[in-house]
Formats: sequence, structure tokens, C-alpha cells
Amino acid sequence: MQQVGVVGMAVMGKNLALNIESRGYTVSIFNRTSARTDLVLEEHPDKNLVGTYSIEEFVASLEKPRKIILMVQAGPATDMTIASLLPHLDKGDILIDGGNTFFKDTIRRYEELKDSDIHFIGTGVSGGEEGALKGPAIMPGGPKEAYDLVEDLLVAISAKAKDGEPCVAYMGPNGAGHFVKMVHNGIEYGDMQLIAEAYALMRHVLGLSTQEVGRVFEEWNKGRLESYLMEISAHVLQTMDPDTGEPLVEKILDAAGNKGTGKWTSQNALDLGEPVSLITEAVFARYISAFKDERVHASTLLKGVEEVSLTEAEKEVFIDELERALYFSKIISYAQGFAQLKEASRVYHWDLQLGEIAKVFRAGCIIRAAFLEDITNAYRKNPELDNLMLDDFFMDTLNSTHQSLRQMVMAGVRFGVPIPAFSAAISYYDSYRAPVLSANVIQGQRDFFGAHTYQRVDKEGIFHFDWQEGVEYRLD
Amino acid sequence: MQQVGVVGMAVMGKNLALNIESRGYTVSIFNRTSARTDLVLEEHPDKNLVGTYSIEEFVASLEKPRKIILMVQAGPATDMTIASLLPHLDKGDILIDGGNTFFKDTIRRYEELKDSDIHFIGTGVSGGEEGALKGPAIMPGGPKEAYDLVEDLLVAISAKAKDGEPCVAYMGPNGAGHFVKMVHNGIEYGDMQLIAEAYALMRHVLGLSTQEVGRVFEEWNKGRLESYLMEISAHVLQTMDPDTGEPLVEKILDAAGNKGTGKWTSQNALDLGEPVSLITEAVFARYISAFKDERVHASTLLKGVEEVSLTEAEKEVFIDELERALYFSKIISYAQGFAQLKEASRVYHWDLQLGEIAKVFRAGCIIRAAFLEDITNAYRKNPELDNLMLDDFFMDTLNSTHQSLRQMVMAGVRFGVPIPAFSAAISYYDSYRAPVLSANVIQGQRDFFGAHTYQRVDKEGIFHFDWQEGVEYRLD
Repeated sequence: MQQVGVVGMAVMGKNLALNIESRGYTVSIFNRTSARTDLVLEEHPDKNLVGTYSIEEFVASLEKPRKIILMVQAGPATDMTIASLLPHLDKGDILIDGGNTFFKDTIRRYEELKDSDIHFIGTGVSGGEEGALKGPAIMPGGPKEAYDLVEDLLVAISAKAKDGEPCVAYMGPNGAGHFVKMVHNGIEYGDMQLIAEAYALMRHVLGLSTQEVGRVFEEWNKGRLESYLMEISAHVLQTMDPDTGEPLVEKILDAAGNKGTGKWTSQNALDLGEPVSLITEAVFARYISAFKDERVHASTLLKGVEEVSLTEAEKEVFIDELERALYFSKIISYAQGFAQLKEASRVYHWDLQLGEIAKVFRAGCIIRAAFLEDITNAYRKNPELDNLMLDDFFMDTLNSTHQSLRQMVMAGVRFGVPIPAFSAAISYYDSYRAPVLSANVIQGQRDFFGAHTYQRVDKEGIFHFDWQEGVEYRLD
Repeated sequence: MQQVGVVGMAVMGKNLALNIESRGYTVSIFNRTSARTDLVLEEHPDKNLVGTYSIEEFVASLEKPRKIILMVQAGPATDMTIASLLPHLDKGDILIDGGNTFFKDTIRRYEELKDSDIHFIGTGVSGGEEGALKGPAIMPGGPKEAYDLVEDLLVAISAKAKDGEPCVAYMGPNGAGHFVKMVHNGIEYGDMQLIAEAYALMRHVLGLSTQEVGRVFEEWNKGRLESYLMEISAHVLQTMDPDTGEPLVEKILDAAGNKGTGKWTSQNALDLGEPVSLITEAVFARYISAFKDERVHASTLLKGVEEVSLTEAEKEVFIDELERALYFSKIISYAQGFAQLKEASRVYHWDLQLGEIAKVFRAGCIIRAAFLEDITNAYRKNPELDNLMLDDFFMDTLNSTHQSLRQMVMAGVRFGVPIPAFSAAISYYDSYRAPVLSANVIQGQRDFFGAHTYQRVDKEGIFHFDWQEGVEYRLD
């Protein structure tokens, strides 16, 4: 009898099974097609992995209460796998979905399985192939009593932060874990787009070569911008194409794909009423990048900017300004993402611990960064913080760097280099710190054409104005 | 026996019934609570309106095939109304849903009713209360043979463009009509936000008074920016609060509401892979405006910009620059909205006629504007136009005005005035006309951490790079 079962032997499932085995657990593995199971066993003859070739055999091979981790494709494949397991499970068994599942599917499955007394845990697993093997960041959501039964296992296989703390924590009920993973991925889109925009500004405004930009990133990675994505960007930009001897990235088609988790984050933000503009611009930036043929055609028709150049003084400070602009924008992106988590926690009744979430992100996952320590500190000081921007540390940083972001946005606009995420950062900052916005004009328009009513700044009530007669009516 | 039935006597339904009656049709009306039916009859004793007090009576009072217009709240109320009508209807009867219904609900209802041989037409109706009464823009979608039976009626009650053409046209099957109305509303959000940003720049950068901005809008409304929204904005800004004698808009709380159609537009754009960034920023701008208390608090903590001013030369040209920037951004917003329509038409198999849609928008609806004539012309010249920006007329305009938008975005950023929609406009323009974007960096990152593969610019194939070993693998 094995202690843990893993269903799905694609690379993530295989690596997670190997990770579990490496921590001293015995593991049963199952895959829909048995050839893949055999392949895993052949590749790793010295491991405590036991291959099984039917659902019945797989389930029967596990100690009770069974701990089964699903690493299958999110969507219908997950439903089918659960349906095939269900007749063979016993009350109290624990199913852990470690796929990139949409959180509303997790909520649905949790509800469906509750009646069978099967514990369902929806778990975000971040870190890619390598993370799955060596230790990912893990974001489990579901019944707390079931989490307690698998906590040791999840702690054992998780990434560890520099201070040794495991990058796993109970996120909350039903869909909370997959929701946090979704926002993690949205933040990842934002980080990646900001880095890409910084690259574009250095290339096209400052005139650096691809490798020079890579070296700047390498430097930045030694400071407050230290992060996995900065590290790999430095590596990517300095990698040469074996074929041509030129920087590989210049040979890579500039059409970014996506797996939909950034889109989910934006769509959910729209549902929640949260202005998560930077991540959304990052998603849109990928979309427009995919219009390669249209762009190439349009480039011959739509005019850009000619004959502009930086002054010597601007050139000298450009990289420092850009570092500050990037750091500023990163704070904004996380502020938006964490505001979304806070609002989701309220709406879905999850009681998310924002500081704990930042701690989980510190290692193993794609957005791991030095910076997350500061976010944890901010929520430690004030767990009810309305917005990350209002924490002392981040406030001081924003106040001392916003001019740099302004300079960089102006440079991008002046030179015709698209910087949608940087622009979203300064718009959000300037909107959020505006005691009065021009939304009063919008409310006036809405009341004019649709009698949508308005409130006033100087007295209580709901009002409608008769714009022809010049008379105000109080409606409440 | 009456020729047309209208269910739902809230203001839109009542006004639409009066509109229909005014064109010489006899109309049966029905409302869930009979008191409201009585009220309508009392208010309009001289009209050919016949009150009915049960669904049976209502249906029995109509000529066959019955033509029934539903003007009830979108959502469950619409389903309930349809369910209550259904047992009393005959094959060939026509149900027209004129509410602000989400297009996927319309598709579902169309499918449900198809088996009963009830024709279901989902119709966008735009123009607010006044439009409903005097002539709205009408966007019907559903079975063409059913549309043909009600075309005369819809033409009769629709708004008429300056050249006399009715603002109604068959949009396409099932949900096409409500989809077009949804995008119409999204464009409306964009137009309103752009006007609000232009107001903010004139107030806070140029230092004009609210009334002075109103007068600028009045001037602009005589030129190429002529539109209903510009007209009412001029009116709104020059309206005095009877209470205080100050501009009313300064007393209106700057927290914008929304009914969700802008959100739907953005969420659908995200589903379709269409970068509809300007409308989305307009939706987010409403959201952030609603955080009034947070903003007031943040305004004491987060720093803005001190001691900047325009040069005399900048002041002189500011309003002209702004007019060009606004016109440019409006083109971008419509380009994005029409690109969304084009992609939706492809994905949902609707065969939308983009030029016809622009014609329908010319009168009656909230976004009616001189400018729509130019859009119709663009699609008349080339119905397959990839993007509105590539039409000669718009291309020339963009090429001659992009510098003005750059100036205005830089002014907003420099002065700390949030201009998310203007910023989205220039980002989209600069992205769309970029033959090479920095999305290659993103693809490099994705391949590095997730083996997501990439394509190359110099050869065919799908590739993965071993970033540690420096070896490229072709996978296809």
C-alpha cells in the first residue's frame, strides 16, 4: 500500500510524483494511457514509484484515508477523472486537484463532492516543471480539516524560502487556493510585460543592444528588483542563437501566447469592480502582439515619430530612472493584484490572509522575488490595509519614484514606443490619489441621457436633475 | 384586436408603446402590476393603447401572428415573462426582447424557443427614455424571416438619420443584435471617459473654469467632434446648481455608476482575444472613481506633482491640440470596438455588416455622431477592412494628429492628471503600428520557465530551447 497517489503523468504530474517520492513517501502513479506510466517507471527504476494500470488498481493500492493528487488537464478531463475515481473512493478520502483550474470549477466540484464525504482540495501549484520537481509554491483551498491531514505532505514537497519557511499555507475554503493561483498568474503577466517594456525602452529610446539590456537586468537583479523573472530575463537576453550567432530573442517571433489565466484574472477583476488595469493591459499586450501580420502591414501606413533623441543629461540618468519606474510599476501591479485578493476574500467569504499569501510567493513560484518580503511586512503591520500603496514603506517608495515613472512614460510616448503597462501604472496612481476625479462629468451625462441619478458632495440623498427645466429632484 | 403588444410599462416600455402608437399602430399593453397599466392609460387617455390585465387577455387581444415586444428587466424577469407567455402563444408568433440583455442569454432563449416555432428576436434599443419615445436606434438579431415580418414596424418607430434613412437594420442571427448593442454601450463608456479626461486636462492643466470647458465643448460640437455626448456635456457643464449658484457638476459626487454593459464588452473582448483597451480603461476608471473615501484618504499620503506649468506657447495651442487628441482617441476607441465586432462575427458566425452598423448608430442612440458617417464610408470602400485605422481617411487623420495626442498624454502625466483612456489610445496605436514588439522577450521567458515553445522570424517551425545547454529543438 502506498501513501500517496498521483493521477496524470504529463511532465508536471511526473515531476510532482518524483518530488513526493524524494521526501520519503511511497507513491502510486496512474495515467490514462499506460504507455506513459511505463515510460516514467523505466526512466526512474530506482524510485519508490508503483505503476498502476486501472483506476481500481490505483485506488486499491493506497492507504486510507487515500491522498490522491490530480495532475490532469484543467476542465472536462478533471471532471472525467473525478467521475472515474468516485465509485472506488471511501468516505474521508482526499482528492487534491493540482491543475490550473478555474476557481469557480473548484467551488462547483467542492459542492458536488461534499455530499459523498470526499474531501476536495483545489490547489494552486506554481513553479513550472522545475518547481514541481524540486519544490513548488503551493496554494491549497478547501476544507480545513482535510488540509490538516495533508499539511505534512504539502510542506514536505513545497519550496522553502530563504528563512527556511515552507511556501505553502492554507488559503481558505473551496476555490480560495485556485483563486490565489489565478491572481498569481495575473501578476506574472504584469511582471513579464513590465520587463518587456523596460527592454523596449532601453532598446529603442536609449539604443542599447539586446545583450546590453541583458546586462542591465543582471545588475538590477542584484538590487531591490531581484526576482526569478528578472534573473531569467537577463539569461534569455544574453543567450545566443546557435544558428546565427545573434541574440536568440531577436529570432523569436514577437507573438506572445497565453493559457488564459491572465484573462481570468482580468475578467474576475471586472466582475468584482476592481480596477486591475496593469494586468489587463499586459493581457491585451499579448493579444495585440499576436496580430503580427496586421502589425507589419500597419507599420507601413501609420506614422510614428521621427527625429527625436534624448539629451545627454537624459541619457545619463535613463537607466536609473527606468529602474525606479519599473520598481514603482511593480508595486502598482501587486497593489492591484492584492486589492483584488482582498475584495475577492470579502465577496466570496474566504478570509484570505494577504501577508501569508505573499509569504507563499517568496520561493518556488514564477513571481518569487525579494520584494515579497516587503509585502508580507506591510500586511503584518496592518492586516486590514486598504491598498498596498498606503503602507509606509511602499508609500515612501512611490513618493520618491513617481517622477521617474513619469519621465519614462513621457519618453515612451515621445519616441512612439508602446508602454501600456507603465502607462496603466501612472494612471492608477494618479487616479487613486485624486480626491476629485472627473467622474462627476460622467454622472452628469448619465443623469442627462438616462436619468441614472447622482449623489452630491455637499448633501445627502439621491438626486435627478431636470436638465431642460433646471430643477433638481431628491428621490430618496 | 391590436397590432402590437408591449409587456413592461416602466419608462422604456411605456415610451416605446407610445412611439409605436404614434406611428398609427394599435397597441395592447401589459404590466405585471396592473396599477402601472392604469397609470399609463390615465396619463394618455387619447392614445390607441389598450390595457390588459392578464397574460391570457393580453395575448388574446393581439392579431396573429402576434408581435410582442418585451420591455422588462434583463435577466430572470425576462425568462419568467417568456415562460408565462409561452403556453398562450401560437406557432409563428414573434417575441421581441428589447431589453439590455446579455447576448449569450439571447442565444440561449433563441435555442429554447426554436422548437416551439416561436420566433425570438433579441433587439438592442438605444437612445434612453427620449429615444424610446421619439425614435431609438434599433439593432435586431434573430431569424431573418421573422425580422422581415416586423421590419415595417421597426422602421416606423426608429430614429432617422439626417439623410432620412431609418436607424434600424437586421444585424444577424440569434444574439447578434444584443451583441451589437453591448459593444455600442462599451463605445459609449469610452466616449464618456474621453470627454471626462479632456475636461480634466482643461481644468487642471490649462486652468479653465467648468463653464469655460463647457463652452469649449460647445465649440467642438460644431466641428468634427459633433455628437450627442459632446452636446449634452456642453449643456451639463454650463448648468448651474439652483441651490448654490455654482456649476452643478462641481456638486455632483465623482463616483460613477455602471449597469454592467461596459464590463460585458471588456470581458467578451478578453474572451475573443481582442485588445479593447480603451473601453476597458473607461470601465476601470468608473470603478476607481467609486473608491471615493479611499481616494480622499490616499490624496493626503501619495504625492503628486508640484510647481509645473505650461509655457505660453503650450497654452496657446493647448485647446487645439486637445481637440485633435480627442478626435484621435475617438477613432482608436471605435477602431477597437469595430475590431471586436468583426472578430465576434467570425467566431459566432454572424456575418455582421460593419458599415450597416455604423449607419444604425448615426441617430437615435447615445453615441450618435457626425463621425459615424466616416465609418460607414470606410466599410463601404472596403467591407473586409482589418481595422478602421487602416482606412485612408482615418489613416490620414491619425497620421496628422498623433503628435497632438502625445503632447496631451505627456501633459497629463507631467501634471499628475489621470488620463487612462488617452494613454490606452496611444499605446494601442503605437503597438498596432509596431512591426516588432517586445513580446519576443515574453516568449523567451515563457519558454524558459514553462517550455511553452516559440516560433522564429527566420524559419518555420515550433521550437523549444534548452536554456541551460544552449541547444534548440524543433518540435513539429
